[in-house]
Amino acid sequence: MTRKEEPQYFGAGPALLPTSVLEQAARDLLEYKDHGVGVAEISHRSKDAIAVIDGTKDKIRQLYGVPDTHEIFFAQGGGTGGFAAVAYNLLAAHAARTGRKGKADYLVTGSWSKKAAQEAARLGVDVNIVSDTTGRVPDADGLKYSLPEDTAYVYYCDNETVHGVEFPTPPSPPAGVELVADMSSNFLSRPVDVSRFGLVFGGAQKNIGIAGVSLYIIKKSLLEHAPDDVLRQLGVPLAPIFLHFPSIVANNSAYNTVSILAVQVVNLVLDHLLAKGGLVAQGDEAQAKADKVYSVLDRFPETYETLVEKTSRSRMNIVFKTPDDAAFLAGAEARGLTGLKGHRSVGGIRVSNYNAVSQNSIDALVSYMVEFANNK
Amino acid sequence: MTRKEEPQYFGAGPALLPTSVLEQAARDLLEYKDHGVGVAEISHRSKDAIAVIDGTKDKIRQLYGVPDTHEIFFAQGGGTGGFAAVAYNLLAAHAARTGRKGKADYLVTGSWSKKAAQEAARLGVDVNIVSDTTGRVPDADGLKYSLPEDTAYVYYCDNETVHGVEFPTPPSPPAGVELVADMSSNFLSRPVDVSRFGLVFGGAQKNIGIAGVSLYIIKKSLLEHAPDDVLRQLGVPLAPIFLHFPSIVANNSAYNTVSILAVQVVNLVLDHLLAKGGLVAQGDEAQAKADKVYSVLDRFPETYETLVEKTSRSRMNIVFKTPDDAAFLAGAEARGLTGLKGHRSVGGIRVSNYNAVSQNSIDALVSYMVEFANNK
Repeated sequence: MTRKEEPQYFGAGPALLPTSVLEQAARDLLEYKDHGVGVAEISHRSKDAIAVIDGTKDKIRQLYGVPDTHEIFFAQGGGTGGFAAVAYNLLAAHAARTGRKGKADYLVTGSWSKKAAQEAARLGVDVNIVSDTTGRVPDADGLKYSLPEDTAYVYYCDNETVHGVEFPTPPSPPAGVELVADMSSNFLSRPVDVSRFGLVFGGAQKNIGIAGVSLYIIKKSLLEHAPDDVLRQLGVPLAPIFLHFPSIVANNSAYNTVSILAVQVVNLVLDHLLAKGGLVAQGDEAQAKADKVYSVLDRFPETYETLVEKTSRSRMNIVFKTPDDAAFLAGAEARGLTGLKGHRSVGGIRVSNYNAVSQNSIDALVSYMVEFANNK
Repeated sequence: MTRKEEPQYFGAGPALLPTSVLEQAARDLLEYKDHGVGVAEISHRSKDAIAVIDGTKDKIRQLYGVPDTHEIFFAQGGGTGGFAAVAYNLLAAHAARTGRKGKADYLVTGSWSKKAAQEAARLGVDVNIVSDTTGRVPDADGLKYSLPEDTAYVYYCDNETVHGVEFPTPPSPPAGVELVADMSSNFLSRPVDVSRFGLVFGGAQKNIGIAGVSLYIIKKSLLEHAPDDVLRQLGVPLAPIFLHFPSIVANNSAYNTVSILAVQVVNLVLDHLLAKGGLVAQGDEAQAKADKVYSVLDRFPETYETLVEKTSRSRMNIVFKTPDDAAFLAGAEARGLTGLKGHRSVGGIRVSNYNAVSQNSIDALVSYMVEFANNK
């Protein structure tokens, strides 16, 4: 059982997965390790399930060099569930440290960080918008962070999928403040010094795996929460128990039924990534693929309008406009290049360049882009 | 690609799925409808994904005869996420109707209804325990419901997976009160008059599909919520947006990234169920399979201690003890009969008799049970 051919698909997510990963996942779905039962049918507390969870965590720890100060876990709710989960859990940790309800600082660079800030405010968090630079990464100078002692966390989105904006390096909040990053769309795409973060999280369905599971890497000290009655007194909204990080970690990601199939797909993706050479190799590859596309955009400025300035350009989601987007898309489709339509809120074209998009796919796209520009 | 043989597995969940369903799901994972891309890789807002969601909803509507007064949707968070989601959303609907923060009545019959009540109370709901009869279904007489005008909802668990307790028919709360049922472990196992319910919900991983998605059937009038600021004033906890039923329904279950793979598995399970003759046929089959096991328990009372009285016995989860549970389990394992260990909180043996457990598997188990009793 295999695919007829490698897809040339550039959708923004759920995204492509390596064909070899899907082939193994399909076998595991029918029968896991010759046990007669498939990986989606076993108990999430069985020995096999625990081995899948632990093995997957070990590989993430190895790939990122996650220090002992940090814990890795899986949860439900995707990135959007993470917006709420971050607010509940980081405020509860701040209350444990300080006895007070902290503020939350948000750097807005596009629709996802904006939604995260809105969700936190809606749930009762005192949100401070440090910067609102939708469409670009803010300059480090002049950012108005809250006072460190009042700040439960500083939040940003490492890669904005819709607007095509990626932080080249993480922001630098004041010393002692917990930095939280949404890496839903660029997780596993380059090395990251996890020790700098209080929390990194993301939905799996771009570079990590399939929808239905999210990955979290958290500083262990943030798993210390103030008691629920203290949180109620302080006006800190309580996490529903299935998003309560201390409960999830205490139960090794199986407080409630985590999808072992989804975790196993992550496991297989990590095997694939390790075999490719890990995050350094993946980072080089992602950059090289993105550079090819951006170089065509820059070479034909009369055809391609890039929407993001150079220092903010995403390696994962490359957004631009053409004089005739419909014609561009139709021509692409005719060559089997699909998933290129821009997000409805931005329009234009979006090339998603996730880990599973091959060099061959990018080369085919780039050839088409040159041809399209020359025929204008 | 297929299984070597039909598994004889009786685990409590995640549960078996029909082999034909898994075979199709494995093919869909690699390539969906010859599009070159698998079902886990397509956008949750693509035409194909919408067709999967709509087709699945249509089949549920057909199977249950869901009236136009009710809406069907999918969410994340499993059954445990549902405990919180019910509280947030039903209180918001009650506030819209009455301008007040309602109470919630819970009938406790086992660990899952107890956990649901605890979760609601933890999140700030005024919980009234109507009855606490863990291990049996309460008598209808003498239940102390709250006043109807104060009651946001009456909650019960239709089948308690751990304690093996199932309501033969739903409870009858006072007229005008919204009845909420957790059917995580007996969804799709018999006909249900959905029109009697305000809400029916459950995680998919028993009879419906794989972990990672939950099924909800809700009365449309309950999608009318009081505004957030009114809810804050009343002290009603706000739903995180990814569990906010009106937002989920307004976006046809794709407010955030629903697992289209998981919904497609539900879709395939429903095809299988329709081909078998629908819920009447499934109900007859489930009852017949359960009767076979219970009849052995009743025939050998010196070997088998049934833990649930006859009027409360679950068709889905049959719990009992033997004089030597370890020997029973070892003998079963030697015959390839697996997944029979009771929940750690109850001990003993648990036979889960979900839809995908075949007549052959039950026959093999029953033969073994007779043999075990005769050898004592």
